[in-house]
Amino acid sequence: MSSNTALLLIDFINSMDFEGGENLLENTKDIVPDVKALKQEAKSQNVPVIYVNDNFGLWQDHVDDLIEDVKKGQGRPVIEELEPSKDEYFILKPKHSGFYGTQLDILLQQLEVEQLIIAGIAGDICVLFTANDAYMRGYDLWVPENTSASEHKEDNENALRIVKRSLQADISSTKKCSIEDYVRNEKQ
Amino acid sequence: MSSNTALLLIDFINSMDFEGGENLLENTKDIVPDVKALKQEAKSQNVPVIYVNDNFGLWQDHVDDLIEDVKKGQGRPVIEELEPSKDEYFILKPKHSGFYGTQLDILLQQLEVEQLIIAGIAGDICVLFTANDAYMRGYDLWVPENTSASEHKEDNENALRIVKRSLQADISSTKKCSIEDYVRNEKQ
Amino acid sequence: MSSNTALLLIDFINSMDFEGGENLLENTKDIVPDVKALKQEAKSQNVPVIYVNDNFGLWQDHVDDLIEDVKKGQGRPVIEELEPSKDEYFILKPKHSGFYGTQLDILLQQLEVEQLIIAGIAGDICVLFTANDAYMRGYDLWVPENTSASEHKEDNENALRIVKRSLQADISSTKKCSIEDYVRNEKQ
Amino acid sequence: MSSNTALLLIDFINSMDFEGGENLLENTKDIVPDVKALKQEAKSQNVPVIYVNDNFGLWQDHVDDLIEDVKKGQGRPVIEELEPSKDEYFILKPKHSGFYGTQLDILLQQLEVEQLIIAGIAGDICVLFTANDAYMRGYDLWVPENTSASEHKEDNENALRIVKRSLQADISSTKKCSIEDYVRNEKQ
Repeated sequence: MSSNTALLLIDFINSMDFEGGENLLENTKDIVPDVKALKQEAKSQNVPVIYVNDNFGLWQDHVDDLIEDVKKGQGRPVIEELEPSKDEYFILKPKHSGFYGTQLDILLQQLEVEQLIIAGIAGDICVLFTANDAYMRGYDLWVPENTSASEHKEDNENALRIVKRSLQADISSTKKCSIEDYVRNEKQ
Repeated sequence: MSSNTALLLIDFINSMDFEGGENLLENTKDIVPDVKALKQEAKSQNVPVIYVNDNFGLWQDHVDDLIEDVKKGQGRPVIEELEPSKDEYFILKPKHSGFYGTQLDILLQQLEVEQLIIAGIAGDICVLFTANDAYMRGYDLWVPENTSASEHKEDNENALRIVKRSLQADISSTKKCSIEDYVRNEKQ
Repeated sequence: MSSNTALLLIDFINSMDFEGGENLLENTKDIVPDVKALKQEAKSQNVPVIYVNDNFGLWQDHVDDLIEDVKKGQGRPVIEELEPSKDEYFILKPKHSGFYGTQLDILLQQLEVEQLIIAGIAGDICVLFTANDAYMRGYDLWVPENTSASEHKEDNENALRIVKRSLQADISSTKKCSIEDYVRNEKQ
Repeated sequence: MSSNTALLLIDFINSMDFEGGENLLENTKDIVPDVKALKQEAKSQNVPVIYVNDNFGLWQDHVDDLIEDVKKGQGRPVIEELEPSKDEYFILKPKHSGFYGTQLDILLQQLEVEQLIIAGIAGDICVLFTANDAYMRGYDLWVPENTSASEHKEDNENALRIVKRSLQADISSTKKCSIEDYVRNEKQ
């Protein structure tokens, strides 16, 4: 399938070593199987997979070092399930939004992407603000309700409500909508 | 009082001529007296007042024309209460966030502003995303809970919760905290 | 003619009241007739005309006030020849490049512009740096050698050489290439 | 010495495998000893060294892979002299300017840098446009005339002239001005 869609995976490479990190880890574990399946579907459909991940204060574009370092934290079980491979894009971000201080927008233009599927943590911070920056730049958005997690479930739902209302995003579960369905609908 | 604080007034110059505009108008009318008092206090304290407002598709920096045009809509009662004067800054924004595609950040740096007070509509869209962009750029934030409004009150509360939690902003009511208090606390 | 081309007029609304302003004024007067003809051709071809102009420290989007104010300077003869009308776009820029801290890029995307014709002053500062930012964003460029001016003629030629070599821009004179020719060549 | 100065090294990690690359390589070899000495002085003075380098189309933040790959080109002798170590910053840039689509500005703010020393290639492209973006963001600039190189020497001199005139940068040779001198002068 040829498409102009990409999948963003936000901040899954995460030490979780901060206040509230245990809650976030528990909620993230719940979504990992669905995220893994989504990533697998993306790869089978030749939809580019782009990790967009906090730089954890390293400020250097040495991704391999970052992953090794972050794995020492309590987020290790999530990282092991969603570890990036070298044929996937990996972009470090210095702040909340994946578009602020990164080459993400330029990469997406080069790949001729017009539609973004966004999965990640935390739903009420980095996913929300990346989605907003994507919306302002004109991307169509699908932020599946079952592939983002926050420290508190109520906050994740609130954020999804804003994403749906304010950014006119699709938030259908990946259990009801496949990437193939999404791309077909957008093309109409 | 010398300070490095500025007051942003987001999207009050608004036709309200869109779906849901009547609800937003009603909720905005409720906050107008508190916004007006806040603006008055800012002026008395020499805190710069900066309107940051949707360009309503005009894409030209003719603010006077824009205000006249927008006043024809149902938002007129709000505009009349909060009309800008020529000694206040007025910046047009093309999208949700006041920082995207505008000279706001450069103006704030020139004014040596480090703390922002943000009031505006809608709380769950333009105020939220302007606050986030401000936070990523390192500004300290006060987003008073009684000077923003959204189409639905529940959404305004949700957005304020995100602003407080994710952006570490103060959301105290202006009835409990004055600009003078806020500036004094930040300086400590 | 349908096209995805726009004409940028950089900093012609200029007081010229600065050190070196007299030289710049003399050199600008030499190009005004060609710029005026280029603008006329753009209008006759429905190519959008976008003034992108220094804010002269006003930091407010009141274009009419700015023009009145700037006209008091020695640049008045140039302004009178190239005065904007209300059906043309007018964007204020706070710094050298027309893309930094402005809504220019968003406007160009909305107009579906892919090719830019750039005329303006000074050729070795604001024209050069606007052209570079345009090139990095993927626009094709025509910077006619007879519609930019600098304080020193040698510097203008140097800047044009960089524009041609580093930004792969066309620098043909408008006497040898019309807008119609340019658009036709680009479409091939 | 405590300072708020940083040294940017632009595009030295370069395959040189492009048209004109041989000329650029020859001219770059001439400046390598002075660049190496400048880098050494920076390190001895605790001035942060920040490589800002083309991503060579890899669009992934795997710096180690990039360096290995680029070393296969004819630029290898330059890379071997100026190879980055892990205690130096390394930022990938997708386009000409080191500030476009990168975390450079955010890193500099975090390091509280106000003055930049810029060395690199090519002087009439990436060094010039990085210097301009730095100037628009308020950094004081030193672009030593003996630590940048271009494909043609005349173009390098032209670019330096623009940097000096338009960006008010110091272009003194490192043989006449040390980092210590520069920092002392700026502090006055």
